[in-house]
Amino acid sequence: MEVEILVVGNEILIGKTQDTNSNWMAKRIAKYGHRLKRITTIGDELDLISSTLQNILKRKPDIIITSGGIGPTFDDMTLEGIAKGLNRKLELNEHAYNTIKKVYERAYKRGLLKLEGMTNERKKMAYLPQGATPLPNTVGTAPGVKISEKDAIIFILPGVPAEMKAMFRNVITPILKEKQGKFIERSFLFSGIGESQIAPYITRLEEKYPQLWIKTHPRIGLSVEVEVSITCFNVDNGEELVNKALNEARTIVLNLNGKIKE
Amino acid sequence: MEVEILVVGNEILIGKTQDTNSNWMAKRIAKYGHRLKRITTIGDELDLISSTLQNILKRKPDIIITSGGIGPTFDDMTLEGIAKGLNRKLELNEHAYNTIKKVYERAYKRGLLKLEGMTNERKKMAYLPQGATPLPNTVGTAPGVKISEKDAIIFILPGVPAEMKAMFRNVITPILKEKQGKFIERSFLFSGIGESQIAPYITRLEEKYPQLWIKTHPRIGLSVEVEVSITCFNVDNGEELVNKALNEARTIVLNLNGKIKE
Repeated sequence: MEVEILVVGNEILIGKTQDTNSNWMAKRIAKYGHRLKRITTIGDELDLISSTLQNILKRKPDIIITSGGIGPTFDDMTLEGIAKGLNRKLELNEHAYNTIKKVYERAYKRGLLKLEGMTNERKKMAYLPQGATPLPNTVGTAPGVKISEKDAIIFILPGVPAEMKAMFRNVITPILKEKQGKFIERSFLFSGIGESQIAPYITRLEEKYPQLWIKTHPRIGLSVEVEVSITCFNVDNGEELVNKALNEARTIVLNLNGKIKE
Repeated sequence: MEVEILVVGNEILIGKTQDTNSNWMAKRIAKYGHRLKRITTIGDELDLISSTLQNILKRKPDIIITSGGIGPTFDDMTLEGIAKGLNRKLELNEHAYNTIKKVYERAYKRGLLKLEGMTNERKKMAYLPQGATPLPNTVGTAPGVKISEKDAIIFILPGVPAEMKAMFRNVITPILKEKQGKFIERSFLFSGIGESQIAPYITRLEEKYPQLWIKTHPRIGLSVEVEVSITCFNVDNGEELVNKALNEARTIVLNLNGKIKE
């Protein structure tokens, strides 16, 4: 499957928050053999969320995951933006409402919160795009959302990492597993020869193994330490091919009098 | 000024590499009072780079910064993708060629590299989009690139963080400073009351100070610890307004019997 991530949050664009959610999700999407095609990060602006979603839908990914902007404050506008982008209205979801109510009741009884009952701000989190299914938030309050739109599934997740991760594990991982593909990644480090010296050999290796993605990553300026990374998605005899190519890459390095580090 | 970042690299989309470059740049763009509007991360694909650049240009940012994909290997295709997106050809840039040649000569003499002279892969890094200016890479080899396109300036930077940072400091920071605006960010942490309890007061505060961006960020699920962050861009008496709003937000928290942690 093809996946896109849409991150919503001004705090990321001013550099206050390092987005670690995308990397966490990216690892899991690849692990189950699916392709993350794009990560887009934008601010908390209604029309921007709506138009960006519409552009993502045009690229026809199977899954769209958004992160951030679903809390109780007025500037959390991901749900409204997504609804607008889909030409759907926001409507009070009873199931979401009851779940949120229970979370606040419990927190109030435990003395974690001082304000009882459903305020407008708490109720706001239960207004979901028409036709959406609320996703339980086992760690926080704001429910996530699942929406089917033509052939795509849209998951709207919280931005708080612990909440996002719990919801991803509960709801998205099973889907990634169900349609699981095969992703392989192997790598090694070398030194003593530069990236540019090995480059023509790597090009030939790529031509020999067109199913694989063979890439060198300089780790230190001037390529004093370089990583060779070999990756493939959904190739039948991928394991065998990656190992063969990896051994050939190692031989190339040794023949050029490079040192293999690990 | 408005800025967009375009990150190019499959390694980020498979979760192998955490993109820290964007956050590093975002901090500096905000610091000098400029607005980062969007971060887009895509893979090393020629047509994708080209079409994504064209879409970024349609949004008319003043500055576009790309990161990644300018090394010596065949799968580094940012320069070619940007050239294609601008309908320009790649041409050998003599200045870049001589610079790269010198770097390799020096490295060879110092015994850092075993292969002498300019190979095709080394030469590849000197093919820049027509009309581009090479930017010296003081840490690595591949030069960066500066291109003017209508009212936008495009900077093509390396993906290796140390190389990107050096080039950003040398070339982009002076421009951000020259057209420097004013960005202010202040925050404090509170506990004991939830995000949803303070939300209506924050909304009223926002209405009172429309020039400011006042946001609450839950730090732990269920909002047991919440940050209030007040930000403004390019407001004349911003410092004074932010301090006033911050004091009022503190008073709100205390009146609700919350604890201020900071």
